[in-house]
Amino acid sequence: MYTYTDVKNKVEDELRKLELPPHPARLYEPVQYMLTLGGKRFRPCLTLMCANLFTEDISAIIRPALALEVFHNFTLMHDDIMDQARLRRGSKTVHEKWDVNTAILSGDVMLVIAYALLGEVDKSHLPEVLEMFSKTAAEVCEGQQLDIEFEKRTTVNEDEYINMICLKTAVLLGCCAYIGAVATGAERKDALHLYNFGKNLGISFQIQDDMLDAFGDAEKFGKKTGGDILQDKKTLLWISLLNKLNPEEKKDFTEKILELHEDEKINYVMQLFEKFNIQQVVGEAMKKYYEAALNDLENVQVTDERKQVLLDLAAAVYLRSF
Amino acid sequence: MYTYTDVKNKVEDELRKLELPPHPARLYEPVQYMLTLGGKRFRPCLTLMCANLFTEDISAIIRPALALEVFHNFTLMHDDIMDQARLRRGSKTVHEKWDVNTAILSGDVMLVIAYALLGEVDKSHLPEVLEMFSKTAAEVCEGQQLDIEFEKRTTVNEDEYINMICLKTAVLLGCCAYIGAVATGAERKDALHLYNFGKNLGISFQIQDDMLDAFGDAEKFGKKTGGDILQDKKTLLWISLLNKLNPEEKKDFTEKILELHEDEKINYVMQLFEKFNIQQVVGEAMKKYYEAALNDLENVQVTDERKQVLLDLAAAVYLRSF
Repeated sequence: MYTYTDVKNKVEDELRKLELPPHPARLYEPVQYMLTLGGKRFRPCLTLMCANLFTEDISAIIRPALALEVFHNFTLMHDDIMDQARLRRGSKTVHEKWDVNTAILSGDVMLVIAYALLGEVDKSHLPEVLEMFSKTAAEVCEGQQLDIEFEKRTTVNEDEYINMICLKTAVLLGCCAYIGAVATGAERKDALHLYNFGKNLGISFQIQDDMLDAFGDAEKFGKKTGGDILQDKKTLLWISLLNKLNPEEKKDFTEKILELHEDEKINYVMQLFEKFNIQQVVGEAMKKYYEAALNDLENVQVTDERKQVLLDLAAAVYLRSF
Repeated sequence: MYTYTDVKNKVEDELRKLELPPHPARLYEPVQYMLTLGGKRFRPCLTLMCANLFTEDISAIIRPALALEVFHNFTLMHDDIMDQARLRRGSKTVHEKWDVNTAILSGDVMLVIAYALLGEVDKSHLPEVLEMFSKTAAEVCEGQQLDIEFEKRTTVNEDEYINMICLKTAVLLGCCAYIGAVATGAERKDALHLYNFGKNLGISFQIQDDMLDAFGDAEKFGKKTGGDILQDKKTLLWISLLNKLNPEEKKDFTEKILELHEDEKINYVMQLFEKFNIQQVVGEAMKKYYEAALNDLENVQVTDERKQVLLDLAAAVYLRSF
């Protein structure tokens, strides 16, 4: 069995070996740039670890697994344009370093490269793998669309929020886990349990991401806290806070956040988060999805011993210690 | 055997039946909008006509063939952003009707939908079909990148130009023809001849498109003539003209086109095109690729009778009468 570090090393090795055409440089350099900005490589690692549940030899699945990393980075490149983000992992975003047209076109070719890598999966499993990937890729676009729309809306309820993060973030983790299993020829039932494992872990992960944006250690987290508050993101923290306010407080809140800016706005909202114990409320939701993920993994028909590395990974994600 | 009109009707029927998810509307409405702007549906028709060379029953290939139409429209949606085009087939472009972010994201999901449709091809041929499609899709991005770069360059030679239009336009027609053949289980040799047939026809078609931009009947062509001249597009007309000018004339030309604007610029360049008989020079290049296409079709191992509809199509494309 491979640990997270083992599979991450395999992913990094194979990424380094990935040969992009040299020309046109302006098309492929941003792809290379994006793929070398680093990151945890969580998606391909999850694919390989799920494959490893069923087989010792995961070598044939490494390149198809890279498809998930390339796809993820394609979404980041295009999302960064839409969000007008200036930095990505501490470096300039592609549309800042080059320009918007470059980020559009290089992103497009990344999506194509992702499909090309995925196409290297064993022929006998290609139809299933491709079907899940396309379904998921469309859902990720839907999630991004909802995320954009929610920023402009004044109210979003918890179900809508969960649906949005599910589409934008969690289904891709489900897809990674599913593809890892299917690519080894695992039973469909097990692949579906792993899909749910990935998806629930993804929801838990995204809720935590929102928590860290407000309560995280800015230095450790790599970005300024309170960004979501400034952007009026309808996170679960925000939704849970509004659920706690009575009509008068809600009215007051709605007015205040329009008046206040920058640190004042962050401080005001953070005080309310603390007053209403929002961190705990949201922490419970996060735990609920984490436990659902563990339950899904439990249902997969392999020995507990083989599952241990995935259990450790899930715990590390939950505790944000990996 | 089906005529172009027959297969076009099949394509239109199936496009009408294509069910896009209703939500999020803002993501899928632009896709629907783009697909209902019309057009000749040349790409899926070519796929179906090439399939029809080898089999009478092309019903299973209609949905995979739609992938080529959806892909083409995805490229138009993103190219229109990059070119800041306001109109597409006489209607507002997606980024004008909605906004740039919408056109980016709806374009992305179109590329995914294209792959999903392609994934419906018979399992036994999926790997080959997918491989050709991904190779082609990457090349189309490369072609668009070169097209953007060429506008900013002062000189482009004929080989560079042919390579650019080959990537941007022609390889997709080659891919359409190839996929039509492969999807029926045709021999690889024949599929490759058809690839070259589509590609050469595509080069001829694009050269003609450039000719029509300068010499076409504005009303029939559906857009103002001289657009390429205003945009400093390095078309084969432009390149052929520069090849004819002596150093002094070239210097004069380069200065003039910087000074002149709008109709004055168009008139000036058009006079030079006529003076140096550029229409004929470029017409010969167009003919060369058309004849190469006919030769490729000749090599396909089916009866002349079965090839007749494709020969008619090629002639109609060449004479721009279809």
